[in-house]
Order: sequence, then structure tokens, then C-alpha cells
Amino acid sequence: MDMPSPYRYLQLADLIVNMIDNGALSPGKRLPSVRAFSEQHGVSVFTALRAYRLLEDRGRLVSRPQSGFYVAEARRHRLALPSVPRLKPKASTVSISGAVAGLLEHASNQALVPLGCTVPDASILQARRLDLALARAARLHGDRHNIYCPPQGEPGLRQEIARRSMRMGHVMSPDDVLITSGCTEALLLALTAVADRGDTIAVESPTYFGLLHTLEMLGLKVIELPTDPVSGIDIDMLSSLLDAQSVAACVLSSGFSNPLGSEMPEANKLALLSLLAQRGVPLIEDDVYGDIHFGRERPKPFIALDGGENTLYCSSFSKCLAPGYRVGWIAAGRYSQRVLERKLAFSLCSPVLPQVALTEFLASGLYDAHLRRIRHAFQDNLVRMTRVIEDSFPPATKVSRPAGGFVLWLELPRPFDSRALFDEALEDGICFAPGDVFSAHRHFRNCLRLSAASVWSERIENGVRRLGQLAAAQLARHAAA
Amino acid sequence: MDMPSPYRYLQLADLIVNMIDNGALSPGKRLPSVRAFSEQHGVSVFTALRAYRLLEDRGRLVSRPQSGFYVAEARRHRLALPSVPRLKPKASTVSISGAVAGLLEHASNQALVPLGCTVPDASILQARRLDLALARAARLHGDRHNIYCPPQGEPGLRQEIARRSMRMGHVMSPDDVLITSGCTEALLLALTAVADRGDTIAVESPTYFGLLHTLEMLGLKVIELPTDPVSGIDIDMLSSLLDAQSVAACVLSSGFSNPLGSEMPEANKLALLSLLAQRGVPLIEDDVYGDIHFGRERPKPFIALDGGENTLYCSSFSKCLAPGYRVGWIAAGRYSQRVLERKLAFSLCSPVLPQVALTEFLASGLYDAHLRRIRHAFQDNLVRMTRVIEDSFPPATKVSRPAGGFVLWLELPRPFDSRALFDEALEDGICFAPGDVFSAHRHFRNCLRLSAASVWSERIENGVRRLGQLAAAQLARHAAA
Repeated sequence: MDMPSPYRYLQLADLIVNMIDNGALSPGKRLPSVRAFSEQHGVSVFTALRAYRLLEDRGRLVSRPQSGFYVAEARRHRLALPSVPRLKPKASTVSISGAVAGLLEHASNQALVPLGCTVPDASILQARRLDLALARAARLHGDRHNIYCPPQGEPGLRQEIARRSMRMGHVMSPDDVLITSGCTEALLLALTAVADRGDTIAVESPTYFGLLHTLEMLGLKVIELPTDPVSGIDIDMLSSLLDAQSVAACVLSSGFSNPLGSEMPEANKLALLSLLAQRGVPLIEDDVYGDIHFGRERPKPFIALDGGENTLYCSSFSKCLAPGYRVGWIAAGRYSQRVLERKLAFSLCSPVLPQVALTEFLASGLYDAHLRRIRHAFQDNLVRMTRVIEDSFPPATKVSRPAGGFVLWLELPRPFDSRALFDEALEDGICFAPGDVFSAHRHFRNCLRLSAASVWSERIENGVRRLGQLAAAQLARHAAA
Repeated sequence: MDMPSPYRYLQLADLIVNMIDNGALSPGKRLPSVRAFSEQHGVSVFTALRAYRLLEDRGRLVSRPQSGFYVAEARRHRLALPSVPRLKPKASTVSISGAVAGLLEHASNQALVPLGCTVPDASILQARRLDLALARAARLHGDRHNIYCPPQGEPGLRQEIARRSMRMGHVMSPDDVLITSGCTEALLLALTAVADRGDTIAVESPTYFGLLHTLEMLGLKVIELPTDPVSGIDIDMLSSLLDAQSVAACVLSSGFSNPLGSEMPEANKLALLSLLAQRGVPLIEDDVYGDIHFGRERPKPFIALDGGENTLYCSSFSKCLAPGYRVGWIAAGRYSQRVLERKLAFSLCSPVLPQVALTEFLASGLYDAHLRRIRHAFQDNLVRMTRVIEDSFPPATKVSRPAGGFVLWLELPRPFDSRALFDEALEDGICFAPGDVFSAHRHFRNCLRLSAASVWSERIENGVRRLGQLAAAQLARHAAA
């Protein structure tokens, strides 16, 4: 059960969106007056109006003066979706660490307009209650917690995470969960539990550059699977690939891949799980964005669909609550013992007090309302960013329509060069992620990723607009040459 | 400069010990009266008496009724030192993780008398000021720190660690330091920066079982170097070994190896560094016990003697201040870039607020007085534990005389079996570390390690005494058989 939300208007907005999406409210239909709506739901007129205005901002409702609010016509996307990359999957070593380190250095430079970095800013996250829980735990019980916790992590935190697992359709016990230093350590433990130096790992393409960097450091080879910006990887292609060569594991995000924001349909997920189980290839699931869904329901992660039979599930609190706390977790199923041994060998155990604070925060029941608020915040950011992109980038630009998360993937006509744009943008004080770091083969030089992880502001808006102008100017130069 | 100490009597005790050790006060010599001593040093009679009593407890002074305090005759050790293991160094894979996990589970069981575990208990550490710094940082500046810090760690903490490096005779800059999740992650980063799966690492023998476990998980082979309980490894033997085979790195503790507590003489350290530099073998230094020295001066670590040319220096705050915070660091010299890339790939960065709290604590200048206090506490523990061992273990028992740290290494005549003792002791509610986990080859079955990391108590004393009785009974059974 959710606790009463301090953001009641968001619940009401969700309700209206659901009614639009399931056809109960059709385009052009007039909504109840603000007063009537407020009375129906026992909220203030202010709260009711806030819900309507939010959906108006998001383009789901339109207001007509003297008349009221109406369901908007289905949104027309002015820009097409990015294309599925045409690439032949081929195992190769990775050599990306230099590019990643360079990018991260710029991405953390707070003087730049922050479109490069996928760390939500503190004013979106509003983690004050968590910080207060930490302050209290340190002040009252510091001594009790100045020890090593078990390598699996604080029992209380594992229990809270297990409790929440029901929300994604999978029942875990605390014993299934091991606490890590963010999703990065979870992926490290998963990869080293199932693969040895020289082995090949299949990943989405484009994929998160941090994963490629970790694969490189572990001496693992990578095969990139062309990924559809809506529905994810091509399962038939993976099937033929597995006929032809040995793959130690797949690393995938079932919902809201980074950078595409794609969400695999459940039927595809099931087909994929069955294929991998048949071939004895373990699946490492990175679900770090799974809680940031824009649809009514949280998509079921792989682990919920195979009962954890063949899945090593990795996630963290870094995207939704507390990047500074570095708390993630892994549920490794049959690989749990191997993962535990590696945790012990690689970092012994995680810091205790941050875990204790998270336990208290989760037990308070406030996390669901928190998640609802940030889902709306990120979705609003993406809607706004998409509009600015439509207005300022060249009309041939393609842009993703993520079902969750907070990044957009843009594709421009070749020979557009996002590295050249990157250098120009830095001079203008703007950072983003150029496309080539999302591929071990350095595909996607004509693509880029924009992150909408900060509170929307004129500075952000102007940054995106300026990028569009620079991109258009570059394409014009190419056309003239 | 040290801050004025809340433990002035410890400073006075150190002063007297130094005068004894350098001959200014010879055995049998009468000390000034308590009143005279208190006036000389501008302290209360109570403080002066406390210093004298402390040294009396430790066997350095004796009191004669109606007469005063006298320098004690040099302490006679009733038990011999453990022997240098006779073993032929030979590279082998490691398979110890099962034994280590089993031991750690018992070692963290708080129902058992804690002689197995090298985590100092909170009442010895007294880290309240650090906890309050954390509470303050979380309460006042949580938002500011709810981000990823740079992969190298918080700049302020790196600065404080660099400042303190002068105390060990080596000047570091903040750029030389990278923050880790305890010394365990520091060792992981060092090992993966210099060695690949299948490579061979040379270690002390006996050595810390956690290191062996990490080597196993990384697929590294190990060569064990026989180690003298006073002076450390045999450099000539290492030299012949390097003639015969390839070694990717040495992992050593220059001061206070675990479990022997040995301290290599500085000339040996220099000879070793020169040998390794000549052969191009990097040295990974685990200096986690270096601050817990019983002699006047902190022994110079390897990094101070070679200027960091060929040394990857690893340490942490886990043994001296805050095991629960999981903050360690590495100074990797020419390997810094490789270590940084691995930190990014393996855990991205460390939690921010614990680092901020540690920065504040170190900047307060209280850490030196804190270290002085715990050095005395651990030394007193070891003196007491040694006395109980002398009284209760079989007379043929050999025991180490550590120059620092808080563990003792015991050797009993074969066919004594410390595994059998371990099982018996568990039934009596006592935990210790059996000798075989300190070797990849499972040498040292007739040895054991006792940890003196808890506040001394009757429970601890009775636990050690009971172990001695059980050991004597086992040897008597062997003799009768």
C-alpha cells in the first residue's frame, strides 16, 4: 500500500492519463470543471487545477478560455525515430576507457550546461529525509554500526529491498539480495561470476559506455546487438549469433535502456529468456532505470519473468534517490555464492551507516510517493526537451521516444559528426555525450545522447537550443562543401 | 604539530619508555616521586600516577611499597618465537575461499569470544566525533553531496591524507591519492593494475587470508615466501626465486604483517626495493597496521623509501578508526592511471558523506591523539594476552612478539591440530583463526592467530585461558597415543 502522497495532484494526473490511454477519455472530450473534479476527488480546487495544468504542459490536455480543459488530439511527433543500426555482430576487444574518462571529466564540470551526465541533480531528487535518517543513525547509533556488516549487506536493507520486489512482480527473500557499491559493482560481480578474461559478452547497441569500460577492464570481448529504439534487441539475430559462436553472458536492460529508453515487449522478453535458457547463456539484467516508467505499470523485469532462474538482476538507488550514497544491489539466483565470494574479495562489505539510513527511509513508506514525483519530473523534462529539439535541430534529426528514464538519443544525417559538435559545444559551455562512446566499434558518430536529469531551466533550454543551432550549422557546412 | 592530547598520561608514559629504551633510564633505576614528576611536567599528581601505573601494568616499571617506582629488569620472554617456516616457494593456484567464508561467519558471531576477528570493537575505537561529523554533514549539506564524487575521491579527504603522509616520511600530493572501499578494494585495484589472470604473485607466509581469497578470485597464482616473525621475508630467497621464475608483483606489509606482526629492518627494506626495481617487479604494500606501532617512531613504509617509484601503497581507516565507514586509499605512483580506470570500472566512486565526515575529523587535528590512545590500548592488550598464553598454553608453545598491530601468532609442536582446537573452541563459545587459512598450501596447521582487538575483559582472558587448556589437553592426548 502506498502512503498518502504529498503529491496528490500527481496521482490525479496519473488517473487522467490512464483514462486517456485506455480510451475512457477520448481526444476532444471535455473534462469536468476544476471545481467538479476537485469535489469528486475530495481535493482543493488548487490541487485539481494543478493536475490539469500539469497535463496541459505535457500536451495531454488543452485549455480553452471560458470553456475548460479538453483531451488533446494524439500528439504528432514531428521528428522520426532513430533507425535500427545496421551492423554485423562481431566479437571484439574493447578500447574505450580513454574516451569515457574524458567524457566523465567534462560531464562532472558544473560550469557546463549539464546535458552529458546521467546523475539527477539534488534538487530533483530531494533526498532530505534520507539525509536526516543518516544524521540520526550516525548521531544515535554510530558506535553500534562501526563494524563490518556481513558481505551480503545490512539485513534490514536487504529485507526492505526484498519487500519492494513484489512491486515489480517478483517475490524475493532478503537472502536473495546482496548490497553493492552502486549498480557498477553489481555488474562487476555479475560479470566476474559468469565470465573469464577473453570471454565474449553480448550487449545492446548503442549501449551504456560505462558497461563497455567495465568490459574492457575485465578483458572481456563484446558483441553488439542492433537495438530497436522502441522494442529493444533483435532476438532472431541473437539466436543465429548463438548458433555461430560462444557467448558467456548477455547484459541487457529490459526497460529503458540507456541511451535509447527502449522497452522490450513482454512477449519478446519471454522469447529471449527461453532462447538464453535453452543455450545456457546467463542474462545479466541492468534495471537501474526500471522504476522511472512513464506508463501506468512498471514493466516486468526479466527476473520477474523467469523467476530468477537464469538472471543476475542488478539495480541501485543512484538514479532515483541517492547517487552520493553508492548503494546498489544484485539478486544473482544460482550465482549467488559466486557473487558473494567476489564481493568479499573485491570490497569486503559496504559502508554500514548509509545502508542503515536507506533502511529507515524505505521502511517509512515514503519511497513510492517520491518515485511518483520524480517520474513526473523526468517525463516533463523529456517532453520539454523534445519540443526544443523539434524547434531547433535540423528537421532530418531523429529522436527517441523513451518509455522511461531521462535521456534522449538523437540521430542526425551522415556525415554529421557529434565529436565535432562536442568540441564546439564545450566552447559554448555545454556538455553532452557524443554517440561514439556508446559502441565498442565506435558506431554512432552521427548520434548523441542528451540527458534531462536536472531541474528544467532557461539555461538548460538555451543549451539544447544552442546545440540544435550548432548541429544545423554543421550540416549546412557539409551541404555547401 | 599534535593538538594538546586529552590523554596526557599516555604522552608521559611514552616519554618514560623512550628514556628506558635509549638507556637514559637503566634497569633498577628509581624514578622521580609522583609529586616531583607531576611538577616537572606541569600535570596533576593523578595524571603522573596514571602514567606510572600504566607502565607498571605493562611490566616496564615496578613499584616498591613506601619507596616508589623503579625501572623493571628487561622482560624475560617465557615462550620462544615461532620458527621461520621451512617451505620451498612454488607457484600454485589458490583454493581457500570456502575456508575463509566459514571462518568469517564465525568471526562475526557476537555470541563468541572474539579472538578470531581483526575488527577492533567500537568501544576501543571511540569514533563518536567522526559519527557526529557525519551527522552534521548529512543534516546541513546532504543535498550538496548527493552526487557522484570524482572517481579519485573527495578532494578534501585526499588533501588530508596527503598532509598526513609526511608523518610516515613520504610527501604525497592529493593527486597521488585515490579513495577506495577499504584496503580490500585498494588491493583489488593494485593487483588488477599490475597482473593478469594466471600471473604469479609473491606473498609473505604466513599471510592474511583475505589476500589469498582475493588472489583466488582474480585467478592469480601465489608463491609463499617464508617469513621471519621478527624481520620479515628472506630477501636472498626472493632473489633466487626471481632468477628462476616470473613474478608479476610482490604483496608485502613493511610494518606489522598480519599475522606475525613482524617489522622488516630498514636495511632489508632498502635491499628488497633495490632487488624488485632491478627485476622490474612492482611492490604492492599493505600498510593497514602501520599506524599501530609500539616503538617511538612509525616505521617508514616502502613507499617512503623508494619515493613511490615502484610501490603501490594501500591503506585504510578500518583498523584505527572506522571499519564501518569502509574508507581506504591507494597511492599507485606510475600505476595511478591504470588504478583510476579500474576504480571507475569496478565501483565508479566511493560514497560521498562518509568521506566528507572523515575530512572534517582529520582536519580537526584529533587523529594523532586518537592514534596514540589506541596504540597503547592494543599494546596493553597484547601484553596481557601474552601473559595469559604463558600461563595457560603448553610450555612448548611459541608466540610472536609483534612490533605493532593487535594479533599474536602461536605455534605449537606437531602434530598439534588447530582445526581440531577450532571445533572444540566453538563448542565452548570461543572463536580464533586456525593457522591453515594463512597459507595457500595450507601450511601452519599447528599454528593459530589470536586477535586482541577488543577491550580487555575477564571474558577475553578466560577465553584465551580456556584455549590454552584445550591445546594442552590435545597435546597430552597425542603424547599418550
